Amino acid sequence: MSDEDIEQLRSRFAREAMALMERTGEEVSRTRLAAELKIARARLDAVFPEEGDMLEAITAEWFAPKIAVMDKVMASGLPPRRKLYEFIARRYVLLRQNFADDPIAFRLYVEMGERYFEYAQSYIDLGDHYLCEIIAEAQAEGHLEGMDVDFARSVINQMVAPYLMPYYIAMLGDRLSEDKLAHIVDAIFDGLVAKDGGARGTSKLNAA
Amino acid sequence: MSDEDIEQLRSRFAREAMALMERTGEEVSRTRLAAELKIARARLDAVFPEEGDMLEAITAEWFAPKIAVMDKVMASGLPPRRKLYEFIARRYVLLRQNFADDPIAFRLYVEMGERYFEYAQSYIDLGDHYLCEIIAEAQAEGHLEGMDVDFARSVINQMVAPYLMPYYIAMLGDRLSEDKLAHIVDAIFDGLVAKDGGARGTSKLNAA
Repeated sequence: MSDEDIEQLRSRFAREAMALMERTGEEVSRTRLAAELKIARARLDAVFPEEGDMLEAITAEWFAPKIAVMDKVMASGLPPRRKLYEFIARRYVLLRQNFADDPIAFRLYVEMGERYFEYAQSYIDLGDHYLCEIIAEAQAEGHLEGMDVDFARSVINQMVAPYLMPYYIAMLGDRLSEDKLAHIVDAIFDGLVAKDGGARGTSKLNAA
Repeated sequence: MSDEDIEQLRSRFAREAMALMERTGEEVSRTRLAAELKIARARLDAVFPEEGDMLEAITAEWFAPKIAVMDKVMASGLPPRRKLYEFIARRYVLLRQNFADDPIAFRLYVEMGERYFEYAQSYIDLGDHYLCEIIAEAQAEGHLEGMDVDFARSVINQMVAPYLMPYYIAMLGDRLSEDKLAHIVDAIFDGLVAKDGGARGTSKLNAA
């Protein structure tokens, strides 16, 4: 088989595995998938030599639409404030839809994401890379004044975490909204700077 | 037994149950606790008529130090910006210490908190009540301009969620810090307002 054939089969078998997971509500093994598809185990092994190769392909399928959204927003030419909002909001809407479509499968993907974190890492790294670009654009317009880019990235990720972490989306449901997220993004652009604004202070209670 | 005697026994048995959970890494039943303490099951039943009564007492013990911290901060007379920071930071430091002391027991309490959410509700309600007080004080000083108090409470809870949600504290570890939290609280005071700052926009990408 050519590399392209293998790539197509990986994607196809991964989607079959996901359909099976969604139907059964359980993680799937290559043995189970081969039985389900009524194909020889050797054929599956040619595409996924290790169990982990299948998990990696499933993760890639799960993240593909989220990566497409990030790419599209980054290419949008929007000003940085709008870009940051869309960068988060559009993934949030996707995740919320995933959850609404099938809460049990969603929780299964969340658990898998925690267990096979390594496969999710390249998605997270890409998101961080893009976020740093948006931060640089924001700083060029005078926002996030004086902040170290990596420190800003970490703080911003924390401030919007409930909109990007599947665990939270499952838990918070309707308490999350695009309107609230927009207020958070505006607070990032209008209130987040390197300078100490006095929250931490130096008073006695703090030292306790 | 007087009410006071029962209250003391509830607290003592709950602490014994917690010590047992921390030693075994497992949830504890009344049967198991009676065996462990070598006391008659009937004696335990007099204090905890239902299994849920023991869970409630364990939850109360777990939250007691966090409630003490909230009460102390609210009575501190600090200005609202400092008060909000301490209100979150001091509970974060407690939770971080709980996790560092015993990660396995910490995860067990998190799971119990999810399963027996009703027992945690009064703690969460108290936190929300206090947060609304701080918001009112902040607004009296001109911050959080024009915001509905309940909307502001929800947005602020989301912005600081990684510092108060045990799940996150276990997951994010060293990526959380008092310094980052202080920047988030300053952004709340300097950038969060009712007025639309433009993040959400009305452009085409948003409508897609």
